[in-house]
Amino acid sequence: MVITLLTDFGTDDEYVGVMKGVILSLNPAATIIDITHSIDPQDLTHAAHTLESSYQYFPKGTVHVIVVDPGVGSGRAILAVKTKKYVFLAPDNGVLTRIMDSEIINSVIRVDKSEYFLESVSQTFHGRDIFAPVAAHITRGVQIKQLGTPEHLKNLVRLRIPKPYISDSGELVGTIVSADRFGNLITNIDLNTLATFCREQAEAVSIRIGKNEIIGLSQSYASVKSQNPLAIMSSRGYLEISVNCGNARQHFRVGKGDTVTIKRHIQI
Amino acid sequence: MVITLLTDFGTDDEYVGVMKGVILSLNPAATIIDITHSIDPQDLTHAAHTLESSYQYFPKGTVHVIVVDPGVGSGRAILAVKTKKYVFLAPDNGVLTRIMDSEIINSVIRVDKSEYFLESVSQTFHGRDIFAPVAAHITRGVQIKQLGTPEHLKNLVRLRIPKPYISDSGELVGTIVSADRFGNLITNIDLNTLATFCREQAEAVSIRIGKNEIIGLSQSYASVKSQNPLAIMSSRGYLEISVNCGNARQHFRVGKGDTVTIKRHIQI
Amino acid sequence: MVITLLTDFGTDDEYVGVMKGVILSLNPAATIIDITHSIDPQDLTHAAHTLESSYQYFPKGTVHVIVVDPGVGSGRAILAVKTKKYVFLAPDNGVLTRIMDSEIINSVIRVDKSEYFLESVSQTFHGRDIFAPVAAHITRGVQIKQLGTPEHLKNLVRLRIPKPYISDSGELVGTIVSADRFGNLITNIDLNTLATFCREQAEAVSIRIGKNEIIGLSQSYASVKSQNPLAIMSSRGYLEISVNCGNARQHFRVGKGDTVTIKRHIQI
Repeated sequence: MVITLLTDFGTDDEYVGVMKGVILSLNPAATIIDITHSIDPQDLTHAAHTLESSYQYFPKGTVHVIVVDPGVGSGRAILAVKTKKYVFLAPDNGVLTRIMDSEIINSVIRVDKSEYFLESVSQTFHGRDIFAPVAAHITRGVQIKQLGTPEHLKNLVRLRIPKPYISDSGELVGTIVSADRFGNLITNIDLNTLATFCREQAEAVSIRIGKNEIIGLSQSYASVKSQNPLAIMSSRGYLEISVNCGNARQHFRVGKGDTVTIKRHIQI
Repeated sequence: MVITLLTDFGTDDEYVGVMKGVILSLNPAATIIDITHSIDPQDLTHAAHTLESSYQYFPKGTVHVIVVDPGVGSGRAILAVKTKKYVFLAPDNGVLTRIMDSEIINSVIRVDKSEYFLESVSQTFHGRDIFAPVAAHITRGVQIKQLGTPEHLKNLVRLRIPKPYISDSGELVGTIVSADRFGNLITNIDLNTLATFCREQAEAVSIRIGKNEIIGLSQSYASVKSQNPLAIMSSRGYLEISVNCGNARQHFRVGKGDTVTIKRHIQI
Repeated sequence: MVITLLTDFGTDDEYVGVMKGVILSLNPAATIIDITHSIDPQDLTHAAHTLESSYQYFPKGTVHVIVVDPGVGSGRAILAVKTKKYVFLAPDNGVLTRIMDSEIINSVIRVDKSEYFLESVSQTFHGRDIFAPVAAHITRGVQIKQLGTPEHLKNLVRLRIPKPYISDSGELVGTIVSADRFGNLITNIDLNTLATFCREQAEAVSIRIGKNEIIGLSQSYASVKSQNPLAIMSSRGYLEISVNCGNARQHFRVGKGDTVTIKRHIQI
């Protein structure tokens, strides 16, 4: 059984290794996969987007553990959320917002049965003391209803994640949500929204980013010359601004939270 | 069987991957877990503390491999150290000091039987040529006494790791041993020492760090307002200086080696 | 069965985790090992050298997956290359040049049978959509000839990787190909070339690097005093410039692409 870990712990400290030790102590057969541990400290929106881009590529039965947890040691609940294929284990702080938006949720449990925790629970490292052992128990067959108290979906904390909108002048306005290692800028403009706006005429749009403009959508990075900018539907299903063999973040000097505006050229 | 790796190799080079290849070539069933590879190059004290915070969370039978090894290729020995639950494999350079301080050691072997090494042993990468194959052999059932020559515990190199002490003016003086990704400052003041000093009255102490003072110990990060400093017993069992949702290293502009002083306010 | 991953994806984004999810969805028993994901973006030569230093330490049957792929989404082919012990899966962009130089190649296939890909293939993330599922299928027993069309070795793209040469004045001239985390400078001067040039008298050479000179080859880092420079045959089988317990890259202020010149002192 697969357990994934998505945290803001980094890998310079021993925290992630320790979580894996706890898991293997309870279930030596668990397969543990790192999604990433480089979420900016306490950046719930970044974590929510990263989870959205990754969870569905894992086998049925995977337990996805998300520990981005500014409220550790406070009264915030820990949730186990079950969908058809997966269990998500996360603090009740909104980091599951995109999952709640896009998946059918079968059940939600507030995890509070301490018999599934480590014997001694610290106030600063629930990743080790609660998340890791609970995830291991689930992969060994413990049902999530055994872990605590049922909760209503509508009571859960949600993030206000900005959505693209149509401006008064009829332009589609989106936001950059992250930049990857290559400097590709990922926006919140999803395929459906863009297709509806474009009326299937992707060549007939222009994308404004800062003072720059990109004409039309490309099919691949290599469809423009090296070091030239382009807009493309990314592998995540969102509009992405890139520079072929270059770095769009540096090229455009923009980043998380900046605006991307799309204009239709042809009136139909 | 679990093998953990704790090194200063980083993950930008292929060194860690190569060690895993060697292990899997000898024992395809080994489960290999990274504690961290970001120990500052050749920083034995940092490695000793990181090992102390992590080893005990792994299953019985785990082989802990520590390769922070400024003396590679010199005459320094390689040790296999057996405790009730674990085997530690490390250079004889003091990196096991905290283990020797806190665990009952069953046996110590100087590893020198080259039949358990790779056929060709370089002078610069014993992680690949000695540590990895020896660890794999141990997980396949080779007893550590087969690996070389018994050694007396008292002959092993030890680090002089600074301990907290009571100053002439009756204050408890400790040292910052590391800062984590969140900027939390971890000191060498352990729970027992602090409890003895506090006489169980944690609210009645003040902690001085640089020119700043923190009053009392907190129970969780969230027990002070966002961006406010606090002192807390960390999940490692040591006093930690933090800033809730912030970065204590940047806030206080202090780091490894700097002093933390604790004063009692109430005379009993 | 082991699958290794060597990419320029970094580990800050979810890309590597997603590839592992795809692999495990198709073959839950696969053992996945990271060589490194820190290849400089699109640096094929760096990737080729890193692969050369690592592939042979893995068990027979390992599938080595290399995704450093500036041409993703263009017409470049994806290759499956079979040697006696391994399968290499990589873009046809030269990243396998060192393998083709040093291994006997049994067969080469252009991977184009989409039934082994994910159902929907993006134009920007073939690591997830093609490389990961194809690697998983190979570890489940699919033969590489089933994956596509046979190709001739001589048609494959090769990198022009600089080789050491003898200058007009009779000196051996090499190039620094990379620096590791410790600041060790790895050159392209291999053991055979150096031994032939030295006529087995390693003590009788001097190595010039920038305006500095190192006399003779050392047997280990520790054979010179701390912070002193040395030249040594590295564990990779190439001449390496180091500083004992220090950082040669900072010491000499040189890096990738800079020249190293070796002179014989004794005329025979």
